Amino acid sequence: MIDYINNNIIHILYVIAIIAEAMTAALAAGRRQMDWIGVFILGCITALGGGSVRDVLLNHHPITWVANPVYLMITGCAALLTIPIARCMRHLRKLFLFLDAIGLVVFTVIGCKIAITMGLPTIIVIVAGVITGCVGGVLRDILCNDIPLLLRSELYATVSVVTGSLYLLATHLNISVEIAAIFAMLVGLTLRLLAIKFKLGMPKFVYNEDYH
Amino acid sequence: MIDYINNNIIHILYVIAIIAEAMTAALAAGRRQMDWIGVFILGCITALGGGSVRDVLLNHHPITWVANPVYLMITGCAALLTIPIARCMRHLRKLFLFLDAIGLVVFTVIGCKIAITMGLPTIIVIVAGVITGCVGGVLRDILCNDIPLLLRSELYATVSVVTGSLYLLATHLNISVEIAAIFAMLVGLTLRLLAIKFKLGMPKFVYNEDYH
Amino acid sequence: MIDYINNNIIHILYVIAIIAEAMTAALAAGRRQMDWIGVFILGCITALGGGSVRDVLLNHHPITWVANPVYLMITGCAALLTIPIARCMRHLRKLFLFLDAIGLVVFTVIGCKIAITMGLPTIIVIVAGVITGCVGGVLRDILCNDIPLLLRSELYATVSVVTGSLYLLATHLNISVEIAAIFAMLVGLTLRLLAIKFKLGMPKFVYNEDYH
Repeated sequence: MIDYINNNIIHILYVIAIIAEAMTAALAAGRRQMDWIGVFILGCITALGGGSVRDVLLNHHPITWVANPVYLMITGCAALLTIPIARCMRHLRKLFLFLDAIGLVVFTVIGCKIAITMGLPTIIVIVAGVITGCVGGVLRDILCNDIPLLLRSELYATVSVVTGSLYLLATHLNISVEIAAIFAMLVGLTLRLLAIKFKLGMPKFVYNEDYH
Repeated sequence: MIDYINNNIIHILYVIAIIAEAMTAALAAGRRQMDWIGVFILGCITALGGGSVRDVLLNHHPITWVANPVYLMITGCAALLTIPIARCMRHLRKLFLFLDAIGLVVFTVIGCKIAITMGLPTIIVIVAGVITGCVGGVLRDILCNDIPLLLRSELYATVSVVTGSLYLLATHLNISVEIAAIFAMLVGLTLRLLAIKFKLGMPKFVYNEDYH
Repeated sequence: MIDYINNNIIHILYVIAIIAEAMTAALAAGRRQMDWIGVFILGCITALGGGSVRDVLLNHHPITWVANPVYLMITGCAALLTIPIARCMRHLRKLFLFLDAIGLVVFTVIGCKIAITMGLPTIIVIVAGVITGCVGGVLRDILCNDIPLLLRSELYATVSVVTGSLYLLATHLNISVEIAAIFAMLVGLTLRLLAIKFKLGMPKFVYNEDYH
């Protein structure tokens, strides 16, 4: 019963997360003055790209949106819906940062889960979580011709590593997989929100010397 | 018999299309002052990249150019051949826009066909067509360090969606698959040529407000 | 016995090569002021990305670092280690160019080997070598928002083609696969070092005429 509810919770959180990702991607598209099709495509790639790259690298077929095309429609429509309501979203910025943080930890846990189901080694489980959580944003930045934000700032990837590690650790303890997932997601979410609030970031590596 | 001729027509159009894609990619490489190997590689990636991404995402192996390496040679040589004749191509610009439009609809129909053969759901069939038709150009733009044209302008992706949808619709009617293909390609081609002539485009989403 | 030693040599060269690739990628990350996680990730992608793309395109699973996660740790740690020692690396520039050249030919031969094992046709064997040798650097340049160096300068891809072709040719002669590998790598390495020393490059294709 708890298992059922919990799976539903993760599923609901997943749908919220892909919608949030698609909508923030749509704003990025608007800043680049892309057309409506571009908005649709960038929304789908950002929301579903991380899971796709994970599935392709791990040979886990069919990939999510091929098995469930409804996710493509949800993300594409969420991206398009952003066009008329963009003006209001400015006031919802905090909500979107929060939803984006939820997306990060939910994607991470889902990625880890799949890798565990495939019986992959510990490091790969965490990497699968990080890829699922972070690659969508990297693809968005590449398509917008930016240096991926992931590589430059904030605790984004770090939060993903921490969430995945805690999840994996907790599944080895004597608790249910579901409680492990919720525990890891809560810690990851807290860390991410603290990082946003206090502008925490990993130290940067600055290398300016000429290397010709 | 008609089936045989028609399959040959699609095959011939496919070869013309990859040659046209490779040659326009070579011009893009020349604008970036790439070297000859760069021209060769960019030509192959642009002409064959869409089909490769489709096959990888749908787990459809071996991918086209692994099964038929001759396509690699055709596209690579077409790209190299562009170097001596680039000066003349300026006068053939309209021909190349036409061949590029043919490529778009042929690629789209081939992508849809493969997805139908794999028994995939409707939406995925159309997505497979769009990926086959459009991703090559996106990869070219990324490698040239541009924001993909696909996301910004013209009816490129729209034409692909329309062609794929019509093809899928027509295959459900009481007509042969081959006539369905030709019908969809003709409509798509017309739409694309109209879009070029009248500079039609999807509306753009312009979002300038600061979102920090 | 010779086989055993030789396989060990290729393995050792491979580990040296991924370390060298990860460290030069870390310097590129430092020039873009990426944070530590970015350094780690860029190092892994640069060192292991070529093999991953090859394995995904050829459907050769599990891909290298999924089967051997230790390579992920080696490259990530090598990239991180670069941060404190970057200052000294300036004086080791020639060593790194040399190690990078070793990486190119070793990656190429490994890629060819895998494609031969899979029974793929000649052209695909060479392409598999070139992808393994060159794609990591392309991914690095894309993530750093540069036009890939591969497409613009130096004999990088050419060396890979020559090495792969010689290796393939030599395996058809009456000599052992191991001697074929060493022969091809030595010729490729010499060519690359000559290219660096004499600033050899493929001719460029410069196309400036307007093509609107």
